[in-house]
Amino acid sequence: MLVNGKHYKTIWMNNSKNAFGRGISISPDADTAAEVHENSSVFMIDQNRLPFSFEITECKTHADTARAIKDMTVRGAGAIGAAAGFAMAQAFQESRDKEYIDNARKTIEGTRPTAQNLFYAVERVCNSSDPAEEAQSIAKEDEEACKKIGEFGNALIKNGMHILTHCNAGWLAFVDYGSALSPVYAAHRSGKSIFVFADETRPRGQGARLTAWELRNENVPHAIIPDNAAAYYMGKGEIDMVIVGADRISVDGCVANKIGTLEKAICAKYFGIPFYVAAPLATIDMKIIGSDIPIEERSENEVLFQSGTDENGIVRNIRVASPGSRAKNPAFDVTPPEFIAGIITEKGVVKPSELRRLF
Amino acid sequence: MLVNGKHYKTIWMNNSKNAFGRGISISPDADTAAEVHENSSVFMIDQNRLPFSFEITECKTHADTARAIKDMTVRGAGAIGAAAGFAMAQAFQESRDKEYIDNARKTIEGTRPTAQNLFYAVERVCNSSDPAEEAQSIAKEDEEACKKIGEFGNALIKNGMHILTHCNAGWLAFVDYGSALSPVYAAHRSGKSIFVFADETRPRGQGARLTAWELRNENVPHAIIPDNAAAYYMGKGEIDMVIVGADRISVDGCVANKIGTLEKAICAKYFGIPFYVAAPLATIDMKIIGSDIPIEERSENEVLFQSGTDENGIVRNIRVASPGSRAKNPAFDVTPPEFIAGIITEKGVVKPSELRRLF
Repeated sequence: MLVNGKHYKTIWMNNSKNAFGRGISISPDADTAAEVHENSSVFMIDQNRLPFSFEITECKTHADTARAIKDMTVRGAGAIGAAAGFAMAQAFQESRDKEYIDNARKTIEGTRPTAQNLFYAVERVCNSSDPAEEAQSIAKEDEEACKKIGEFGNALIKNGMHILTHCNAGWLAFVDYGSALSPVYAAHRSGKSIFVFADETRPRGQGARLTAWELRNENVPHAIIPDNAAAYYMGKGEIDMVIVGADRISVDGCVANKIGTLEKAICAKYFGIPFYVAAPLATIDMKIIGSDIPIEERSENEVLFQSGTDENGIVRNIRVASPGSRAKNPAFDVTPPEFIAGIITEKGVVKPSELRRLF
Repeated sequence: MLVNGKHYKTIWMNNSKNAFGRGISISPDADTAAEVHENSSVFMIDQNRLPFSFEITECKTHADTARAIKDMTVRGAGAIGAAAGFAMAQAFQESRDKEYIDNARKTIEGTRPTAQNLFYAVERVCNSSDPAEEAQSIAKEDEEACKKIGEFGNALIKNGMHILTHCNAGWLAFVDYGSALSPVYAAHRSGKSIFVFADETRPRGQGARLTAWELRNENVPHAIIPDNAAAYYMGKGEIDMVIVGADRISVDGCVANKIGTLEKAICAKYFGIPFYVAAPLATIDMKIIGSDIPIEERSENEVLFQSGTDENGIVRNIRVASPGSRAKNPAFDVTPPEFIAGIITEKGVVKPSELRRLF
C-alpha cells in the first residue's frame, strides 16, 4: 500500500537465490554450510512507532526477528506468519545444528502463542528443503490471499454501507492488503461510498492508531470510536455490517481474535447485524477446537500505561490508571460460530460450519 | 468515606442557617435580599485530578459550580445532582432577579443533559422557599439513599462472588457511599470475600482512575480490565454478577448510563449473569421513555487524547490516536429493561417493570 506516495509492504526479507542459498542444499551433515551463507535481514515497518513516526526496522538474526514479533514491532495474523517464516529461515542460515534449530523454533513459537499463522509458517519452513524460498512463498501467498479476500468481501458490501471493524486487520497486519480491511479498500476503490467505524481497541489501541492511520492514508471516510460505543451505534442503526480479522480459527468454526471481538459479535447478533470474519486459510487450524485455543495474557502495563505524543510531538508513556491498582490483560477472546455470518477467505465466503469444504 | 484516614464527602456547601439565609424569606419582590446574604461556597473533590492528586476545589458562585459540573470536576449521578442543587442555591444568593435566576437555571441545566439527578435537584431548589436548605436536604438524602442501596444490594451478594462494574458509580459519583459500589462496600465490611472487576471505562477511564482508586482506599480486592475484556471473563465463568449505576432511568425501565453499559448488559444476558442497576429514586424520570433520553455527545478529544502521569509524576495529556483522524464520543447509552435483573434503590430491589410501585 502507499505511504507518502511510496509503495511499502509491512514486512519483507532481502534475500534472493543469489544472496542467500547459493544453491547449497540443506542437509543434517552440512555443518559448515551456514558459514558460506550470507545472512538475510528481515525488514519491517515498526508498528510500535506508528502512527506517530514511520520507521523501518532491520532484524539481522532470527533472534532479532523473534523479539520483534514478541514486542509487537510486527503484529497482526499474516504479518506475524511472514515474520515467523522469515525468522525460521534466518535460523537455518545461522546454523544447521539440530539443537540450534530446535531452540530457534521454540523461541519463535513462544513469541505469540495464539497466532495460528506463526505455527503454520514455522512448520512449513522447517519442512522445506529451501527455508528462505519457502518463507518468501509464505509471504507472497499471504499477499495474494488478502487480495482475493478483498474481492470476495467487496461483493458483500453495498454502496452507502457503514462498517464496524475491531483492532487492525488491515495491510499492516499482513504483508499487504489486509484481511478485514481488504474488502473495505476494494469497495472504496471500486467507487462505493462507505464509512468505517474503527473501534479504538484498548489496551494497545490498534484501531485508533493503525486502522485509522491506514484508512486516512487511503482516504476512506472513518471515525474512531471508544470500544464501549459499538453497541450504541448498532442500536441507532448506524452500523450495517461488522468485519473483523482472526488470529486463529478452529476446526469447529470458533474465531480467536483481539480481545473485545466476542463483545462486538454478541451485540451484532442482538441487533441483527451481519458479523463477518476475514482471514486467509493459513489462519485456520484444523487440529484444534475453540475451547482449546491458548489465550495469551500480556503485561498489565499495557492497560495501566498509554503511550502517545505530547504537544511537542515527543512520544511519552504515561500512567492512566490509579496508582497501586493492578490490571488483567488477556489479548484475545474466542467467538463461537453461532455469531458469525460468514468467513471471508481467499477461496470464497463460507459459513463457520463449512470450513472443511475449503481444504 | 476515608481518604488518608480522614473522612470526606464528594461535595458539600459551607452554608448554615446562620451563614446563609439569616432567616430572610425569599420572595419575588425581595430584590435586594441577595445583598444581605453571605454567599456560600461549594467545595468538591476535584475528580479531574484524581487519582494522581487529591485536591479540594472551591466554587464561589453558581457559575463556578456549573462550570465544575460541565468540565467534570464533579461527575456521577448523585454528585451532579447535589452540585446542581448547590449551584441553584448559590444563584438565589447572588440575585433575586427573575431573569438572573432563569439564566442561572438554564446554565446549570445545560451542563450535562443526560443527568436526571441534575434536573431533579434544580426543580426542587427552584420550588423551595429556602433554596440553600433544600439543596442541603438533597445532598443529605442522596447520602442516605446510597447507604440504603448498600444494604439492599449486599443481600444479593454471596460470599466469594466476583462482581463486574462499569465506570464509577462509587462514593465519588454521589455525596457518599455510591450506588453500584455501595453494595460492594457493604458486603466487604460485613466480612464477605469478594472480588471486583473494574472496567477501565474509556474514554475518560473512570473505572481505571476512580473506581480503582476507591476500591484500593477501601482495600477491596480488584483488577482493572480493558472494557473489551468483560465478555471474556463472563465466558470463563469468572463473573457472578454485574452492578452498574445509572444517570437516568425512564418510566419504561430503560437505563441511561455510561457508554458501554449496554454492551455489558447484552453480554451478561447471553452468559446468564444477573445484571443489576443501582440508583436512588432521584435518578428515575417518570416523565420520559427510554428512546427519548437525550444522549450527550462529548468532545472527540476525550477519545483522541489521554491524560496521566509520566515517570516524574507530572500530569501530561498525550495524543493516543492517529494524527488527522476524527473520533465520535457519545457519553451514554440506553439499556432496555429486558437486560436488567433488578434495580437496587433505597426502597428495595425492583424489576424495571415495577418502577411505578416505588412512587
